[in-house]
Amino acid sequence: MITREDCIRQDSGDSLAPLRALFALEGADAEGVIYLDGNSLGVLPRAAARRIGEVVEGEWGRGLIRSWNTAGWITLSQRIGDKLAALIGAGSGEVMVADSTSVNLFKALNAARFVMTPGRTRLISEVTNFPTDLYIAETFAREHGLELVLVEQSGIAAHLDDRAAILMLTHVNYRTGFMHAMTEVTRAAHNAGAVVIWDLAHSAGAVPVNLREAGADFAVGCGYKYLNGGPGAPAFIWAHPSHLTAMDREDWRQPLSGWLGHAAPFDFTPHYRPARGIARFICGTPPVIATAALECGVDTVLAAGAHGGMTAIRQKSVALTDLFMQLIDQRCAAHGFTIVTPREADRRGSQASIAHPHAGYAITQALIARGVIGDFRAPDILRFGFTPLYTRFADVWDAVDRLAAVMTSGEWRDPRYAIRATVT
Amino acid sequence: MITREDCIRQDSGDSLAPLRALFALEGADAEGVIYLDGNSLGVLPRAAARRIGEVVEGEWGRGLIRSWNTAGWITLSQRIGDKLAALIGAGSGEVMVADSTSVNLFKALNAARFVMTPGRTRLISEVTNFPTDLYIAETFAREHGLELVLVEQSGIAAHLDDRAAILMLTHVNYRTGFMHAMTEVTRAAHNAGAVVIWDLAHSAGAVPVNLREAGADFAVGCGYKYLNGGPGAPAFIWAHPSHLTAMDREDWRQPLSGWLGHAAPFDFTPHYRPARGIARFICGTPPVIATAALECGVDTVLAAGAHGGMTAIRQKSVALTDLFMQLIDQRCAAHGFTIVTPREADRRGSQASIAHPHAGYAITQALIARGVIGDFRAPDILRFGFTPLYTRFADVWDAVDRLAAVMTSGEWRDPRYAIRATVT
Repeated sequence: MITREDCIRQDSGDSLAPLRALFALEGADAEGVIYLDGNSLGVLPRAAARRIGEVVEGEWGRGLIRSWNTAGWITLSQRIGDKLAALIGAGSGEVMVADSTSVNLFKALNAARFVMTPGRTRLISEVTNFPTDLYIAETFAREHGLELVLVEQSGIAAHLDDRAAILMLTHVNYRTGFMHAMTEVTRAAHNAGAVVIWDLAHSAGAVPVNLREAGADFAVGCGYKYLNGGPGAPAFIWAHPSHLTAMDREDWRQPLSGWLGHAAPFDFTPHYRPARGIARFICGTPPVIATAALECGVDTVLAAGAHGGMTAIRQKSVALTDLFMQLIDQRCAAHGFTIVTPREADRRGSQASIAHPHAGYAITQALIARGVIGDFRAPDILRFGFTPLYTRFADVWDAVDRLAAVMTSGEWRDPRYAIRATVT
Repeated sequence: MITREDCIRQDSGDSLAPLRALFALEGADAEGVIYLDGNSLGVLPRAAARRIGEVVEGEWGRGLIRSWNTAGWITLSQRIGDKLAALIGAGSGEVMVADSTSVNLFKALNAARFVMTPGRTRLISEVTNFPTDLYIAETFAREHGLELVLVEQSGIAAHLDDRAAILMLTHVNYRTGFMHAMTEVTRAAHNAGAVVIWDLAHSAGAVPVNLREAGADFAVGCGYKYLNGGPGAPAFIWAHPSHLTAMDREDWRQPLSGWLGHAAPFDFTPHYRPARGIARFICGTPPVIATAALECGVDTVLAAGAHGGMTAIRQKSVALTDLFMQLIDQRCAAHGFTIVTPREADRRGSQASIAHPHAGYAITQALIARGVIGDFRAPDILRFGFTPLYTRFADVWDAVDRLAAVMTSGEWRDPRYAIRATVT
């Protein structure tokens, strides 16, 4: 049996432990809250509170319009993109921070259509992909005469035939935490002549990603999960440099051809001429305050560089999720849970999900009432995200301890936990 | 001759004068800066600095993921849309705050295509429209087999024939300040069987707008100009209720069919089903901090309600721009300026622009060095925005006084003012 003392011992040997101080967790700590929902909304970096204050009162308040130049607002989206590139194996000048993940996916699909094998008819994705990806793809496919084919994870390989135009996958599944082997899947798609778009929503900042090495074609991702960029933080988009070169050659434009993606936005010419490279993937004026907040979030992950970097993050993430699953086995086996996250470490991201046949929502609520914040994903999944930058091994122990208490006491049966709120 | 004392007298009789205290102008005042660029970036509302601090440290920092429910993040976009509706003659539930103006224009064009007269082939706009509108329209037209016809303002009426599908105009021109007669232009377009999209970037919060009364079809607008929402603030979109009903009837979807525009986003179903009404025009997760900042900006305009509302704002705006033009006539006539903004008050918005044949950029820079912040729009326009909520009549006098000094002294000829920065 694993004890709380074992966990405390692990924490004391944890090279990433000092990074927890980068986050504003004193409120949670005082409340006794264990936050296991960084996969939905990362914790506020202390630096972000300060930095947002500077941007608002200094740059906007005192600098006013001058800050576009003096505070570098105009280069913000690409500058933060460059920082982020280091976390996903992309080169400098290849990543642009802009818009939402959904909007960026729309751009990526349009770009994929530009480079796909002509005559191919199928856009393939997983039926368990995050809904916004499927919704954007569904309308896109309909509009462009493609067939959207939604398959189970196990059925992807069989669908990589000469009809496959685009394979669009989320690297780490939002419900189960299953992680695709990016390099192998990309290679299989390429062998079949298909283009691959990766959604890194649950990967960026959570697991090592190397887009160039994997030979991926396009990628998008989210700023507010493991990148700790704040609620509704801008998202990002990446394209392989060979595609960027091809786009440059043909002056290809994406449909969201807004003014900041123009080759010379401040010439104010009536006709559109796309900027070179990734810059054409920006559209309107960037959300400055939100982008500045995202920078602080990205910096928290980059700060791990001095403590072992993404390798250390990954190692701790695997250890945390392993610990969670072992403790569920030891403490909650009798309560009807099934672990749906792969036991094999290299097949999962930084979350662990457990299914409960009929009471998942009520148990999540009862657990939140006991200060353990995870979330529920219909119909039956309790989702727990582990963020190596601030989650402690003892937190995992305490979380499972409280879950066991919720189950043993039967307090999840309290009728007030059955009432479903708007968002969970 | 108008004197500075005349202007101070006007200020002392100004019913909107108390509202200036809502803005963080102490830095500008201490620097001796006169800010005439609220048409590009509105001044920071004092309440926004406080509110952003609360959202960041309280709602994100302490509330964490719970704030989607407890702080009402999930309803933010529609709630601020409802507030904004009151400023543009729209009904409750008809306006959604989301994305950028460019992205919203893309949505509006797609919606216009849904309701336009079938078989029509032309998308008509003004050659002097703001470039991002033209760029989005150009790609859209190309993609959908429409012909983008760019005409001069005087040529619009002649182009409203049986080829006209969509008329897309910006209500107040970003360079000249020319304001279209929204009701008459809309009526003429409808008589010709065309659908009208209005861009309210330079109107919302600046001039009275009544979209329903004008019978407009669609509108978009910007949050960071006269609405004082902060750099890169989210934009907004409106559709006439009759179009919303038609869309509901046919389950019409816009191409940016992201998850929050789904009828039941938290059911996480794999297939898209659009939400009813304007809600389908939201796409991804909204930028919470930026939207909260925009609310404070919208509140500054709503605060005028107790001081005469949009009528008082308009009255003062006309007086400020009148004063500016008269002073230019009196003080700067000999220096080669042409007033390009209409002298007739009902043909202009809340800005006044003057052209200079060859030195517009250098003069703008020399004027900024003297603390008067306006901006330059190529090739020859010096643009000055007047924000009745915080611009004083004496500011106008001082600004023209400094412009006269810049011209008389010849200091604009200093070579350092000839070097063009990235953004102006």
